[in-house]
Amino acid sequence: MTKIEQIHVKESLLKVNDFVARELRERFTSQGSYVVNLLSSPGAGKTSLLEASLPALAEDYRVLVFEGDLETQLDAQRIRNAGIDALQITTGGACHLEAHQILQAFDALSPEEPYDFIFIENVGNLVCPASYDLGEHLRVVLLSVPEGQDKPPKYPAAFRGAQAMALTKIDVLDYFDFDPDEAERLAREIQPDIDVLRLSAKTGDGIPTWLEFLRQRREERLAAR
Amino acid sequence: MTKIEQIHVKESLLKVNDFVARELRERFTSQGSYVVNLLSSPGAGKTSLLEASLPALAEDYRVLVFEGDLETQLDAQRIRNAGIDALQITTGGACHLEAHQILQAFDALSPEEPYDFIFIENVGNLVCPASYDLGEHLRVVLLSVPEGQDKPPKYPAAFRGAQAMALTKIDVLDYFDFDPDEAERLAREIQPDIDVLRLSAKTGDGIPTWLEFLRQRREERLAAR
Repeated sequence: MTKIEQIHVKESLLKVNDFVARELRERFTSQGSYVVNLLSSPGAGKTSLLEASLPALAEDYRVLVFEGDLETQLDAQRIRNAGIDALQITTGGACHLEAHQILQAFDALSPEEPYDFIFIENVGNLVCPASYDLGEHLRVVLLSVPEGQDKPPKYPAAFRGAQAMALTKIDVLDYFDFDPDEAERLAREIQPDIDVLRLSAKTGDGIPTWLEFLRQRREERLAAR
Repeated sequence: MTKIEQIHVKESLLKVNDFVARELRERFTSQGSYVVNLLSSPGAGKTSLLEASLPALAEDYRVLVFEGDLETQLDAQRIRNAGIDALQITTGGACHLEAHQILQAFDALSPEEPYDFIFIENVGNLVCPASYDLGEHLRVVLLSVPEGQDKPPKYPAAFRGAQAMALTKIDVLDYFDFDPDEAERLAREIQPDIDVLRLSAKTGDGIPTWLEFLRQRREERLAAR
C-alpha cells in the first residue's frame, strides 16, 4: 500500500476542474459551439466589447453569453439589452468561474438548437481566473489602455494561458502613457504565440477584425472535428 | 466530547488571519506607526498615487511602503526611485496579501526607529484582498475613472470593508462616461460612512487634501492610544 504523506488540496481541485473542462470542451465541440473565455481586470471593457460586437455576429450565428459575476445581474442585463441571449452565473463572492458552473449552465441549454458561439465573461480579476480551464476553445485576455503596459509581467499567468490579447479602449491612447507595441512585446515575452487585437468598443475601431478573427478561429476548430 | 461534523477550512484560515491582524495592529499602534492598506483593480493607480504623494509626506514623516505583488519587483523599484523606502512582498501567485506576511515584514523592521506611516500596496485585485485584514488602521479602495462607476455594487466586499474611497485618474473624466457623484452614491449604498477623495496623480489635483486626510487620521488614531 502506498503511504500518502501530504495532500495538496488546491492541486487536486484544479485536476478535477481540468477533467470537467476537458469533457465540456468535447461536448461543446461535438455540438458545434465555439466557446470563448474572456478574462481581465474589473473595468477593462469585457461587457462593452461584447455589446459592441455581438449584435453583428448574431446576424449570422446563434450567440450566447455566460455572465460571471460575484453577485449582481448588471452585466447580463446589458447583454440582453443589446439583443443577445445571456445566462447569469453568480459565484457568491468567489473570485473566478469554475468548470462545474459551466457544466451546470451547459445542462440548462437546449441540445436541439445549439449556439454557434458561447462567450464566457469571467469575473473581473487578473489573477484567479487564469488557473481555471472552463472548457473553452479560445481564451482572450483583455488589457485596457488606462491599466498600463506593465501588466503582462506583473500578472503573467493571465497572459501565459491566453491565445489572444485584446488591447481595449485604444480610443484614449492619447491621454495615457501607454505604448501598444511595448504591451505586445511584454505579452510575447510571456506567451510568444499570442495574437493581439487593438480595439475600441466606443469608436468601433478593430471590431470588424475581431469578428473576422472569431469566425476564422471557429471554422478552423470545427473543421478539425 | 463534541462531535465535529464539518470543518470549513476557509473560515478557520480567515479567523487565524484576523488574530494575527489584531495583534499586528496593536504593535503598529504602540510604536506610533499608522498603517494604510490600499486595495484596487490592477492598473487603478495605487503605485502612481504613492509616487505622487509620498515624497511630500516624507518631508515630515518617516514613510515606508510594503509592496505586494505576484512575482515582480517593478512597483517596489518605482517607489524607491521616488526616494521612499519599500519592502517587496511577493505572494508567489497568490491573489492577495495575508496578515502573516505583514507580520514577517514587521519583524524585519528596526523597532528603535519606527516608521510614522506604513502603506501596504495590496495585489491588484478587487475581490480576494477584501477578505484579509492586514492589521491596518485605514483601508482605502481606489476606483479609477476608466473602470466605470458600476464597480461598488459589482465588487461590494471591497467597498464595504474600506473607510475611504479614492476616485483616481480624475484628469480623464472628460473622456469616459463616468459620473463621480454617482460613483459616490453607489459606494455609500454599500458603505454609508465612506470618505471619498477625488485625485489625479498626473495633475496633482486632490493630492494636498489626500495628504491632509492621512495626517489627520494618523493624529486622531494615535491620540486615542
